[in-house]
Amino acid sequence: MKSSLIEQRKQGRVLIFSKLRKSGQLARIDIAKETGLSPATVTTITAEMMADGLIEEVDRPTPNGEVRRGRPRVELKLRPSSCVVAGIKLSEGVISSMIVDLEGNTLGSLVRPFDAASFEAEELAVTLNALLQDLAETAEQKVEDLAGVGIGVPGIVNKEEGFVHWSPLLKKRNVSLLTTLTDHLPIPVFVDNDTNLVALAELWFGYGRTLDDFIVVTIEHGVGMGIVIDGQVYRGAQGRGAEFGHTKIIPDGALCRCGQRGCLEAYIADYALLREASIVLPDLPGASVEQRLDKLYEIATDGNHDAQSIFARAGKLFSLGLANLINIFDPKLIILSGEQMRLDYLSSPEFKEEVQRNIIHVDAPVPEIVVHRWGDLMWAKGAAAFALNECMNASL
Amino acid sequence: MKSSLIEQRKQGRVLIFSKLRKSGQLARIDIAKETGLSPATVTTITAEMMADGLIEEVDRPTPNGEVRRGRPRVELKLRPSSCVVAGIKLSEGVISSMIVDLEGNTLGSLVRPFDAASFEAEELAVTLNALLQDLAETAEQKVEDLAGVGIGVPGIVNKEEGFVHWSPLLKKRNVSLLTTLTDHLPIPVFVDNDTNLVALAELWFGYGRTLDDFIVVTIEHGVGMGIVIDGQVYRGAQGRGAEFGHTKIIPDGALCRCGQRGCLEAYIADYALLREASIVLPDLPGASVEQRLDKLYEIATDGNHDAQSIFARAGKLFSLGLANLINIFDPKLIILSGEQMRLDYLSSPEFKEEVQRNIIHVDAPVPEIVVHRWGDLMWAKGAAAFALNECMNASL
Repeated sequence: MKSSLIEQRKQGRVLIFSKLRKSGQLARIDIAKETGLSPATVTTITAEMMADGLIEEVDRPTPNGEVRRGRPRVELKLRPSSCVVAGIKLSEGVISSMIVDLEGNTLGSLVRPFDAASFEAEELAVTLNALLQDLAETAEQKVEDLAGVGIGVPGIVNKEEGFVHWSPLLKKRNVSLLTTLTDHLPIPVFVDNDTNLVALAELWFGYGRTLDDFIVVTIEHGVGMGIVIDGQVYRGAQGRGAEFGHTKIIPDGALCRCGQRGCLEAYIADYALLREASIVLPDLPGASVEQRLDKLYEIATDGNHDAQSIFARAGKLFSLGLANLINIFDPKLIILSGEQMRLDYLSSPEFKEEVQRNIIHVDAPVPEIVVHRWGDLMWAKGAAAFALNECMNASL
Repeated sequence: MKSSLIEQRKQGRVLIFSKLRKSGQLARIDIAKETGLSPATVTTITAEMMADGLIEEVDRPTPNGEVRRGRPRVELKLRPSSCVVAGIKLSEGVISSMIVDLEGNTLGSLVRPFDAASFEAEELAVTLNALLQDLAETAEQKVEDLAGVGIGVPGIVNKEEGFVHWSPLLKKRNVSLLTTLTDHLPIPVFVDNDTNLVALAELWFGYGRTLDDFIVVTIEHGVGMGIVIDGQVYRGAQGRGAEFGHTKIIPDGALCRCGQRGCLEAYIADYALLREASIVLPDLPGASVEQRLDKLYEIATDGNHDAQSIFARAGKLFSLGLANLINIFDPKLIILSGEQMRLDYLSSPEFKEEVQRNIIHVDAPVPEIVVHRWGDLMWAKGAAAFALNECMNASL
């Protein structure tokens, strides 16, 4: 039973680690209570984790005005510097990146234009290598001291193999991106689909921090989804699950970037809104997609009926898609995650009513839908959370 | 760490039990190999399980013509009679029921008309009590000797509480069916949504027996889905997940029995096909839904274009719904489970092509879609598998 005992010790470390990650800091006795481990086991395992430098002791905060008597009670927390990683998010036009510690503190960040529409894997590796050096400097770190780097790529990605079936950023299909990047970068590399990483950002540092089951939906250039079940990102049998943007919402409907018809994305993504606008508002000003979209939203808010009708339809179809997800998953929480104005029209009371109209009605609470407005670096932070997740899985 | 050791012993029993359930019979040394437990642990735990009467020794089958030398090698298997349960499936018009042992052998069965369109919970309890007595007689068992009875109910059911939010069979909404049945029946009762139980039938006795992850879809009066993730039926945060028939496939589309519009079920369930037929073939002969549907399928097969168009649309929309599931879950296997002719037009090469046209394209195998034609008692066997599952979870 030796292997089982090692397995059991590891389970104890994982339990204690995730309890501290969720709670911030806790006394040993509370760790025992909340994990179900015996106080003796908690003492043994936390001593070991402290010797490994993963956790540290801190004084329990004293309530205001209370006179402290005797020895201060000691609590445990994660040691932020025990795992410092980089996260990189690749998008069309821009690479964003950051360095975070185990507590999610941002130690440095770098956003850089990314001009080539599509790359060979080797060119990408050279670009990322240079970026990593500059990024590390912003955080006064050496690249070699980082525990790893997580990389979020749009498209269909198998995380286990770091294999990119397809991405709008790569010239070729079926690229072993992990292999190429591992050859060129001096630290461990992890590659995954970008939206899965937003789910990890919510799990580690966001609204999902205290939860084990929730769904994250992102809407920007495309529509993404991440599913967390039992504290793990659900990736499907072949690692390409949780594809929401290309589920069909209207049979033989609008043409999608993917070449199929009627995908949800073909009605609510950036390009879908501007395609509609091109019919009724062909002179919409703006040099970029973002500028034209901002303008479209502005004139809708000012009362332009054509513009309003474009957002209204997008909102309605998105609400149907969300209702379908709720029917299938029955989640406690859905997080709409992003940074743009889309979130305004997708979180109105009318929108939530429309979702409710389309889910199975029972006399029980409907899932909460919350909007999480992150800054520009949400995706990079997700990539960093991914690197933390992988590094800690290996070292616990 | 005492509680952990008990937990660990239980895990070992669960591991060995499910290995034997999947494999039929195995030598101790092969159990050790395939579970990762040490041979010593396997010896200890199997001795304990044998003393509890859960498993038994059998001779290893000798290959044809081989001369057996020395002591026959001994293998272990589940002891069928160690857990005998009843399964009952409630439908509109009929109750089907059966008694099975731990190996899934049918010891007796009973199908009985069920006339009342909707019941009070107490009336149902009286009906089921009488049925159980008669069912036990067919199997030469005493009701009191059964380990439990699993009951499958159409509608929205919370299994943990045995609470029926809504069912077409019950007069009231929000019924604590488990409480009422437990008061009236002499053995442990378990209540769940019927389609979840078909997933358990596949897991225990069907095509999912050797798998941990798959999806089951049923099409009869309605459309049902069961999701198995990591060997467990996925039930959602509030126990009402895996609702597929009422996901929307056409915004503001056909009216559904549930009162909403555009549900998948409103295009492919029995009543949906006959609603279409009533427009173009108002004189379709037949005294029952089944008879008229059989007739409709017959004339479609004989070349009637109107009838063909009805099945063609249903097949097309079903393929879209299935493609959406594949995009979301990326399963290895989808089982279309049922007993009727619907399965013929839903498993044609054209149908599978249409599914493939609507899933995200990557150069990797698409999930297998298999058709499993069960007899009339599929649902009852699922209810029995559910009872086995619950009883064994408690006694391992």
